[in-house]
Amino acid sequence: MDEGFFTVQATSGAARAGLLATDHGQAETPLFMAVGTQGTVKGVTPDQLRDAGIRVVLGNTYHLMLRPGADVVNQLGGLHHMARWQGPMLTDSGGFQVFSMGEINSVTEQGCAFKSHLDGREEMLTPERSMEIQHKLGADIVMQLDDVPALPATRERTADTMRRSLRWLDRCKAALPTHSAQGMRQRLFGINQGGLDLELRAESARELVARDLPGYAIGGLSVGETKDQMNAVLGAVTPLLPPGKPRYLMGVGFPEDMLEAIGMGVDMFDCVLPTRCARHSLVFTSAGRLRMKNAMHAASTGPLDTECGCYTCANFSRGYLRHLIMAGEILGMTLLTIHNLHFYARLMGLARQAVQEGRYGDFCRDWLQRVTAKAT
Amino acid sequence: MDEGFFTVQATSGAARAGLLATDHGQAETPLFMAVGTQGTVKGVTPDQLRDAGIRVVLGNTYHLMLRPGADVVNQLGGLHHMARWQGPMLTDSGGFQVFSMGEINSVTEQGCAFKSHLDGREEMLTPERSMEIQHKLGADIVMQLDDVPALPATRERTADTMRRSLRWLDRCKAALPTHSAQGMRQRLFGINQGGLDLELRAESARELVARDLPGYAIGGLSVGETKDQMNAVLGAVTPLLPPGKPRYLMGVGFPEDMLEAIGMGVDMFDCVLPTRCARHSLVFTSAGRLRMKNAMHAASTGPLDTECGCYTCANFSRGYLRHLIMAGEILGMTLLTIHNLHFYARLMGLARQAVQEGRYGDFCRDWLQRVTAKAT
Repeated sequence: MDEGFFTVQATSGAARAGLLATDHGQAETPLFMAVGTQGTVKGVTPDQLRDAGIRVVLGNTYHLMLRPGADVVNQLGGLHHMARWQGPMLTDSGGFQVFSMGEINSVTEQGCAFKSHLDGREEMLTPERSMEIQHKLGADIVMQLDDVPALPATRERTADTMRRSLRWLDRCKAALPTHSAQGMRQRLFGINQGGLDLELRAESARELVARDLPGYAIGGLSVGETKDQMNAVLGAVTPLLPPGKPRYLMGVGFPEDMLEAIGMGVDMFDCVLPTRCARHSLVFTSAGRLRMKNAMHAASTGPLDTECGCYTCANFSRGYLRHLIMAGEILGMTLLTIHNLHFYARLMGLARQAVQEGRYGDFCRDWLQRVTAKAT
Repeated sequence: MDEGFFTVQATSGAARAGLLATDHGQAETPLFMAVGTQGTVKGVTPDQLRDAGIRVVLGNTYHLMLRPGADVVNQLGGLHHMARWQGPMLTDSGGFQVFSMGEINSVTEQGCAFKSHLDGREEMLTPERSMEIQHKLGADIVMQLDDVPALPATRERTADTMRRSLRWLDRCKAALPTHSAQGMRQRLFGINQGGLDLELRAESARELVARDLPGYAIGGLSVGETKDQMNAVLGAVTPLLPPGKPRYLMGVGFPEDMLEAIGMGVDMFDCVLPTRCARHSLVFTSAGRLRMKNAMHAASTGPLDTECGCYTCANFSRGYLRHLIMAGEILGMTLLTIHNLHFYARLMGLARQAVQEGRYGDFCRDWLQRVTAKAT
């Protein structure tokens, strides 16, 4: 039992508005978590992040275990204190990046042996080691280590890795102390797997729920499947999850995908898209996307988004921002990052308000039509 | 006559504490101006800059005339409005960068023909064009175009370029309207030249003073000469300049060089050192310099400088800053830039206070001894 960690405050169809409460403060859902891979959301200070409306930051265990190392982070007071982030944090298990960035030597029931992408050093990631590292990092929400099949995968391989992930979850649960090395409460989320096979997804969901976890993530999506395939998985999984626990769709994503997922009962998201796009001068606005290198912006005195109240839109013209981008100035990346994160945070706030007012379906439909119409 | 632009408020020996008053606000002297080459001080927002204690920003005419172009800057409201800098600004003439970055085709009495380092486009910089561009950029202080000899230069060549610079000054004075394209008062500074030849320097100074300008710069230093050579020039020039006008030593520099120059009556400085060093992880502190890549900082929980009150020192440990640097994170550059600029601004504040309290000589001596002792 974990009363008080998550509360559903309102619903509109399957969409929910809720509240996460951690030892590092609260966060309203639907929630977009900014990705802070190496102990910083790239290009912005923690104050700029908070002012942009971001309430939860995600840290990557894989990157942090390799540099500066979990022990150094712990010596520096844990991830919150080190990075001066005064809000909730979540760390992933390290598994996904091992599979996507490291050079894998072997994956066995024990865990995953790999070489660091930084210096080739041999490392081992097991459920126990992932928990030990996340315990030292000290995030409020920690993720189980899961086994991820290389794609495309056969049904048998998908089923095997899904079931191994459940066994690893049990080892994670047994290994994780209730509190971080800094003495703060940590909650373990399990991860639903099973590829695009709805039966395997359902089996995974039932097994996860039987373990009564503080929250449930849906993994293995946003890896090249169609929107219909993603929605089919969400439609099969979310009804099986307990209504009182938070649901986190990992690595998603595009604003329209998040809105559809909220409509199917998802509460939490993370994605590098707003920050990575900003560093490549692609901007999200309420009137569609902008490529800031486009010469049409060169002498434009207007803001990126007339409906936006972020620091960037309140102070700087498109023309100046384009100049900074064309000149390769760091400030350009910083200012576009602030804007894109604010756009994501504001979108979640609008979705929340629509849920609270019982009109989520209309909101979602209107928003998608409007952006699709203007982006052409 | 230009009453009210500059006021000497206190002296201590030859050192002065003063006040610059412009249409964009005031700035106390001694003053360090941050270099904002391309319309931004690299890596920081205007708010971070102001919070770091910076009061005046310098823009580079050469870079801005090529990109985004003076007309675009003017369309975006001028340099202040475009970059949201709510304080005084100074622009240089463009000449120095033409000589150091552009490919020069010819230098004649008319001006300097060169090719852009960006795209090879042929451009011409004359005294009149420099004034036209600076008029559009709209800085509060604009610099005359001067002719800069390639080094080493013969006495004859040094004398020729110094005298040509005086003729160009007269053309600048005739060409510059009293107000910027944005309707704000602009003041033209002349530049003392003459290399290391004290007679030529004196001739230049007397000719400049005869033109009764709002302020006087000392150029052509910090180009490889010894400290003694620089001090000899300052010792020859500053006594010839009128006490009621500001004196600006261009491109200097190191904290110790600035302190010595203040002791000889200089009021204003600019240099890329604090910002460029920050981007190369070199930090200025009241206990000497720090190389932040050094492994000794890896698990250090202390601030960069225990005497510093900047945003970086108030919030972040050396260990975290080193991690950001080692990981190549933009935030590391931003935070070190904030600290180094604050260090420079604070140093100017301490110098000012010492002048006001009539103890500049002691202050300067103590500071130099202390930093030299600890840096070893």
